[in-house]
Amino acid sequence: MHPEVQDLLTTYFGDRFSVSVAHRETHARDESHPEVHWPDGVVFAESESDVLKVLEIARIHNIPVVPFGAGSSIEGQVLPVHGGISLDLGRMNRVVSIHPGDFCAVVQPGVLYPELSRQARPYGLFFAVDPGADASLGGMASTNASGTGAVKYGTMRDQVLDMRVALVSGEVLHVGTKARKSSAGYDLKHLFIGSEGTLGIITEMTVRLHPLPVTVAVARVTFDSVQDAVNCAVTVMGAGLNPERIELIDARAAQAVNRYKNLHYPESPTLWIEISASGESVLRENLEILRDCCMEGYATSFMLAREERERRELWESRHHAFYALKAMHPSHHTHATDLCVPISRLPEVVSHTEDLCQQWGLDAVLLGHVGDGNYHVLFHGDPQDQQVWENIHTVSDRMVEKALEVGGTCTGEHGIGLKKKKYLQQEHADLIPHMRAIKQVFDPQGLLNPGKIF
Amino acid sequence: MHPEVQDLLTTYFGDRFSVSVAHRETHARDESHPEVHWPDGVVFAESESDVLKVLEIARIHNIPVVPFGAGSSIEGQVLPVHGGISLDLGRMNRVVSIHPGDFCAVVQPGVLYPELSRQARPYGLFFAVDPGADASLGGMASTNASGTGAVKYGTMRDQVLDMRVALVSGEVLHVGTKARKSSAGYDLKHLFIGSEGTLGIITEMTVRLHPLPVTVAVARVTFDSVQDAVNCAVTVMGAGLNPERIELIDARAAQAVNRYKNLHYPESPTLWIEISASGESVLRENLEILRDCCMEGYATSFMLAREERERRELWESRHHAFYALKAMHPSHHTHATDLCVPISRLPEVVSHTEDLCQQWGLDAVLLGHVGDGNYHVLFHGDPQDQQVWENIHTVSDRMVEKALEVGGTCTGEHGIGLKKKKYLQQEHADLIPHMRAIKQVFDPQGLLNPGKIF
Repeated sequence: MHPEVQDLLTTYFGDRFSVSVAHRETHARDESHPEVHWPDGVVFAESESDVLKVLEIARIHNIPVVPFGAGSSIEGQVLPVHGGISLDLGRMNRVVSIHPGDFCAVVQPGVLYPELSRQARPYGLFFAVDPGADASLGGMASTNASGTGAVKYGTMRDQVLDMRVALVSGEVLHVGTKARKSSAGYDLKHLFIGSEGTLGIITEMTVRLHPLPVTVAVARVTFDSVQDAVNCAVTVMGAGLNPERIELIDARAAQAVNRYKNLHYPESPTLWIEISASGESVLRENLEILRDCCMEGYATSFMLAREERERRELWESRHHAFYALKAMHPSHHTHATDLCVPISRLPEVVSHTEDLCQQWGLDAVLLGHVGDGNYHVLFHGDPQDQQVWENIHTVSDRMVEKALEVGGTCTGEHGIGLKKKKYLQQEHADLIPHMRAIKQVFDPQGLLNPGKIF
Repeated sequence: MHPEVQDLLTTYFGDRFSVSVAHRETHARDESHPEVHWPDGVVFAESESDVLKVLEIARIHNIPVVPFGAGSSIEGQVLPVHGGISLDLGRMNRVVSIHPGDFCAVVQPGVLYPELSRQARPYGLFFAVDPGADASLGGMASTNASGTGAVKYGTMRDQVLDMRVALVSGEVLHVGTKARKSSAGYDLKHLFIGSEGTLGIITEMTVRLHPLPVTVAVARVTFDSVQDAVNCAVTVMGAGLNPERIELIDARAAQAVNRYKNLHYPESPTLWIEISASGESVLRENLEILRDCCMEGYATSFMLAREERERRELWESRHHAFYALKAMHPSHHTHATDLCVPISRLPEVVSHTEDLCQQWGLDAVLLGHVGDGNYHVLFHGDPQDQQVWENIHTVSDRMVEKALEVGGTCTGEHGIGLKKKKYLQQEHADLIPHMRAIKQVFDPQGLLNPGKIF
């Protein structure tokens, strides 16, 4: 970065601007990407006007700006591949207001989603998108994150009512509305959601909250095969039970989680199905229906967790599957796929994946949000072992081809970032020229998170 | 239209192209717009290649093209204000395939939504967006229509998984995915949804279907005031009952419907609340909770309809409110507002509306999808009576100002079309230049549905 620009940033931001090795190093990586790319400096924004000042300096001096939330992206979204400024929004972490009567909250982009649920709880409300990692709401909107709650409540796209978005031009747009729905012109809100910080910087959002379920139970259901588990998931989805969550892990994942958390769950393909209801007897009746679906679906065991501690432990272990795998192979790098397919094709796609892993001799773990057809395969390998990484990428490529062949997508919730650009080419070659043209509309100099998506 | 172009169209389309008075006249109006604007000719497309041919001729000869579905828009969306070709998609009315395991169907744009529900029923599924008029699915996507089902199932935006969209350039884009969710780059699907035929022509869509509720009941609940009814609706929404529908009509609307359908419902502010459940005892328990909410909410009566005939009659009468009002004043024109506000502000906004109508001496009917804060006021007046129409427009303007002041939108489900352009200016002045730039990207000659939205 030109010394003149550094002086400008220092003058304006004081100690909110840093070029220290420590700060630049923590903004050079995300949760899964093996490479690191250092920014030239980090600005810790504390307000929308801080964001606008960074964009002004970037515009005048032609410097890349890469927004940084919690750094929990796993496709390299926050990596400053062209250097420039890492714009850290983590200090814009205030829940501005909660509106129980409207089932929504106004938040700054740096708020971590578990914190929002914590503050909403006294009102009998919670935030429904639950990706696992302690992600920031701004980052989650930028990748259209989802996770376990999506099967009932949808993705980030379904939670964001309106946003303030700062553009490189210095404009601040208000997209969306605080009303529950609108048909007022082109929907620019949905254009910014999922744009991975390449079109503008989110400085404030209104997000939906949902009433806490009155009563909840989780069923842990085991099967002889992943196919049986997936088929059962389809049945449950068709029964109109509208589960809060319906998650799959394979035997290897169950094993990894048991070791990591010192638990003793059966190490076979498992569905975790969470059901809620407005009252006890309603819950009992729905659980009966659920049990029937599972037993007709060749379940080998059906265990209920009613108590909150037990339920939390169960979901914790699901959330930690990613870290559990890493812990089993501390020196290894990991690689996660994120396919999403029409749910009826899931058994076929999953067995195709299993065959590939066997054929290429890869040790992999499978887990998924099967209620919406989204599943992840976690590969791992010694970073030095070129052969295994070649195989991992070959298998990933074949998996994506298969997913697209059955009408699915290369990413259900992680986004494109750096690593999936070639897959976006396969999935939406026809759209990419139009995406580029839209990028031109909002960021003609190409300064916002360059090198991502396309 | 230049004779040379007419010859071209006749040569290619034969009797699928018409310049007859009858055909042009039926494509010169929609359901509510008083003005008429005649197209120069009408093409009845029967395939995507028909659509592409029309766009090719339009591109070469610089002729406006206005897509026409069922003609049920009420903001003038289908009016060819600059003449040109009315592109009638009504013959592209095939349900291509139904995929019960994936809870979706592939449809052509001219399919009327009740027909899709009819064909889905044997699979235990239905299409959840229910605007009332016999709208076409392509038209509904183009205005992001919603209606009574939106409170539980969302709007068209939430139903469309993917679309084929023909551009003036001759390209056919595939936007979205058949998977339930995706984070694959900029979301162009949501850009085309709600764009009112100004960016491209939808030639095929995959839409979501939902399991038919196992058991259903409708409560008809009356109140002394619209305020009481709206407050009660907020309570019900907070109780986690997740109603299928929750609709409000005021005393005048109840009266109009009674007269029109020769019914005898109490002529006071009424909430219609439909509850579904996975079993009988579940339903009974939820209805108990519902009854408690209503009684605590100062309901003056609480009647249940369990039988399908009775429920259908009830919803029919709700659907016919619009026509009921027209029938009360056959010689009058009507004008419908479409405000949507954060639900907690609804009582305040509604009483503001009531005051305005009194102050300006207007006879109006109020009905709304109060579960999501969307309500309509239906005005009527003798087309010759300039004074009453001035007053109607003054009151409409004041209503929009109020809705925007509380964070709402000028249109919850009808779209902008011709009549709400000035309101879009008030609501999203900051966005309109960017909407224009996006229009340039997809339709540089400005041929698609010119004069609409902005």
